[in-house]
Amino acid sequence: MPEKILELLDEKKYLAVKEIAEEMNTVDLAELIEELYEENEDRTAMMKLFRLLPKEAAADVFSYLDADTQQLIIETLTDYELRHVLEDLYLDDCVDMIEEMPANVVKRVLKNSSPENRQLINQYLKYPEDSAGSIMTNEYVGLKSGTSVKSAFDIIRRDGVDKETIYTCYVTDASRRLIGYVTVREMLLSPLETIVDDIMETHPIYAHTLDDKEEIAKDFSKYDMLSMPVVDNENRIVGIITIDDAVDVMQDENTEDFEKMAGMAPSEETYLKTPPFKLAKNRIIWLLVLMLSAMVTGGLLEHYEAAIAGLPLLVSFIPMLMDTGGNCGAQASTMIIRGLALDEIELKDFFRVWWKEIRVALICGAALSAVNFIRIIIQYGDIGVAAVVSLTLIITVCVAKSLGCILPIIAKRMKLDPAIMASPIITTLTDACSVFVYFTIAMAMLRGRLI
Amino acid sequence: MPEKILELLDEKKYLAVKEIAEEMNTVDLAELIEELYEENEDRTAMMKLFRLLPKEAAADVFSYLDADTQQLIIETLTDYELRHVLEDLYLDDCVDMIEEMPANVVKRVLKNSSPENRQLINQYLKYPEDSAGSIMTNEYVGLKSGTSVKSAFDIIRRDGVDKETIYTCYVTDASRRLIGYVTVREMLLSPLETIVDDIMETHPIYAHTLDDKEEIAKDFSKYDMLSMPVVDNENRIVGIITIDDAVDVMQDENTEDFEKMAGMAPSEETYLKTPPFKLAKNRIIWLLVLMLSAMVTGGLLEHYEAAIAGLPLLVSFIPMLMDTGGNCGAQASTMIIRGLALDEIELKDFFRVWWKEIRVALICGAALSAVNFIRIIIQYGDIGVAAVVSLTLIITVCVAKSLGCILPIIAKRMKLDPAIMASPIITTLTDACSVFVYFTIAMAMLRGRLI
Repeated sequence: MPEKILELLDEKKYLAVKEIAEEMNTVDLAELIEELYEENEDRTAMMKLFRLLPKEAAADVFSYLDADTQQLIIETLTDYELRHVLEDLYLDDCVDMIEEMPANVVKRVLKNSSPENRQLINQYLKYPEDSAGSIMTNEYVGLKSGTSVKSAFDIIRRDGVDKETIYTCYVTDASRRLIGYVTVREMLLSPLETIVDDIMETHPIYAHTLDDKEEIAKDFSKYDMLSMPVVDNENRIVGIITIDDAVDVMQDENTEDFEKMAGMAPSEETYLKTPPFKLAKNRIIWLLVLMLSAMVTGGLLEHYEAAIAGLPLLVSFIPMLMDTGGNCGAQASTMIIRGLALDEIELKDFFRVWWKEIRVALICGAALSAVNFIRIIIQYGDIGVAAVVSLTLIITVCVAKSLGCILPIIAKRMKLDPAIMASPIITTLTDACSVFVYFTIAMAMLRGRLI
Repeated sequence: MPEKILELLDEKKYLAVKEIAEEMNTVDLAELIEELYEENEDRTAMMKLFRLLPKEAAADVFSYLDADTQQLIIETLTDYELRHVLEDLYLDDCVDMIEEMPANVVKRVLKNSSPENRQLINQYLKYPEDSAGSIMTNEYVGLKSGTSVKSAFDIIRRDGVDKETIYTCYVTDASRRLIGYVTVREMLLSPLETIVDDIMETHPIYAHTLDDKEEIAKDFSKYDMLSMPVVDNENRIVGIITIDDAVDVMQDENTEDFEKMAGMAPSEETYLKTPPFKLAKNRIIWLLVLMLSAMVTGGLLEHYEAAIAGLPLLVSFIPMLMDTGGNCGAQASTMIIRGLALDEIELKDFFRVWWKEIRVALICGAALSAVNFIRIIIQYGDIGVAAVVSLTLIITVCVAKSLGCILPIIAKRMKLDPAIMASPIITTLTDACSVFVYFTIAMAMLRGRLI
């Protein structure tokens, strides 16, 4: 596709390009523009295509571009062109964009926005990064209490074209306080003279500007909502959040959990856009902490040097014990962290969860021990060692599963993110436990053979 | 809340209960009903509350209950009551429910559905579990080509109340083939005599009945859609998928990835609802496979028994090397698996990704080795051992990061789920590599001291 467009642009067949662009979806057009630039790191072709877009499509396409491309385009557009794009851009998309731009670009954007928009942008930029305010938009239909369905439709017809979603209209009292909402569906099904107050839903689910956006995304999923109003301290509506932004928050939170659970600081950009140095920085802190913690296990092994010298065979089971413990802990912690994230598990379920994990641990531990016992008997014919390894295995599995369920719940109770209590940290803790248990049991049961 | 309702029900204050229920949100009501049952494992209170719900709310609340509670209610309702609930239930919710029920309950449900619905349910049940067909609904507004906006609104007014979403109407030609869609918004902004063909979008994004539902959920997120039409082989529209179901698919896929990445078979129920035996079954296979694989590392250690006996200090660095390797591999594989899942990384990026990981590995490896080298010099004053451990560490980090990025991409190319190539398997592989490298280097550099 990019090759074909490049060819047509080279041959100055602009009409053909225009026709292709008109058939294409906004999101695909944005992708195409990014690819045109990536193809040869030259902005000429990209700008030609962007300028060929119909005016009403340009702002839409622009909002789907990544921040780097947006910046390139802003830098290239004339003030006149830029004003047209900004005029048609939804306010939340514009605020999102500004948050990513360097100061000189922001200045140009603000200079070319209308005075009202400039004021709104500045106001929106003040909300903290994780708050409801940071993802809301002002593009909603507001109706005064007492409006009739007929007037409501007139208002939608008059203002609607600029509103991101018109399907839910919010009803406010004389002091702009939110008192309910009414859907276009409800209004279509009612006679035109009906007063919206009579058909509105009076218990809207809403968010405050400073609410955590993660919690809001959960509410969207729980209550199957398409948009949610956001109110200030006096309960006055200041904006709405739409489902597309809530879905983005959801996916970002999932990605963040994946990263934290693998012992990494969350990254802001996609993988391919993050430079290696930044990736390394995100990863090195946990690696260092865990490496230094693993030295405790090393120290324990040093402590048991005499036992190892007496029966070197013992060493060869250490990797298996450590890995199995780590895997068992990772399984338990993953289930618990995910359950906590989806609100399927709550703090009050602590003992139920632990009791469940203990039973799972006993079943898994017994099965693994049995396999191990048999294999050691067959391979080495050493019942003593087989018993020590199998017993250690059961205890390790129980410890690992317990740590895996207890630590995330403790983290949650301490208002920390449970996702940090995942595989890496639990593996390190389990390692030390399993080595300690292993040699304690070995010293007790095989005392005679360890010198 | 459940206590208060129980009290009111006990005192037969049904009017008060009714008033409370009317003020409550559907989802919260469903939660309350489940809690009433959990409170005392007795269905009397739950059924009383359910029967007190206004008729139009009952089906909605019912659709948000979990399968167990739905079954309890179906078993208790009379045929007459059941018919009323089923009448108001959306078809996709009904199909979802039937998929979870035992045969005798399904029979009762089908017996009490209208003949047309029975036929539709049977047809919908035929779609494979992961297909678009399995999550679609027939509750959409379809318009014939040539319809005017005025007639469209009449159709919505006539049929709309039963449609799950009326905001997007699908336009079909004479043979029911999908040719476009028009939003209520667009229609509200057009004169009543406009023909929908003139204002409709002619390139709808659609799915085929057998498309993978995971891909469809991605499209929802990519194109910011609220609903997507589903067509059969002849391009005839057979249903639509709504965003709430797409969001559920997205979250389920994320949960599945979390589980697979921790070496577990995905579970169908939430954690607290899965019995310990089922949990153990989901976990044991990978544990066994990984335990047996870890024996390779154990075997290697046995092979180097002589070296260990000669310089027992070497053993105490094994946990640190193994853990660090595992953590590095987990970090890389998590980033790659997540990137592949979100389509941020594609197969053609293979070499770019690998080259990036190698650079990250060198930065991380150098930093970790330096810290280690200094610590060993300070603690043991043994430059030889310090050099061997540090060199091994750099190589281990490089191997781990490489495996972490190569294996998920290979899995993807082989049409397997990249999520299986996560932490557990990479840790096990890295373990064997690091032990091998460690002793190979030690034997070469410290030959004199290892007997």
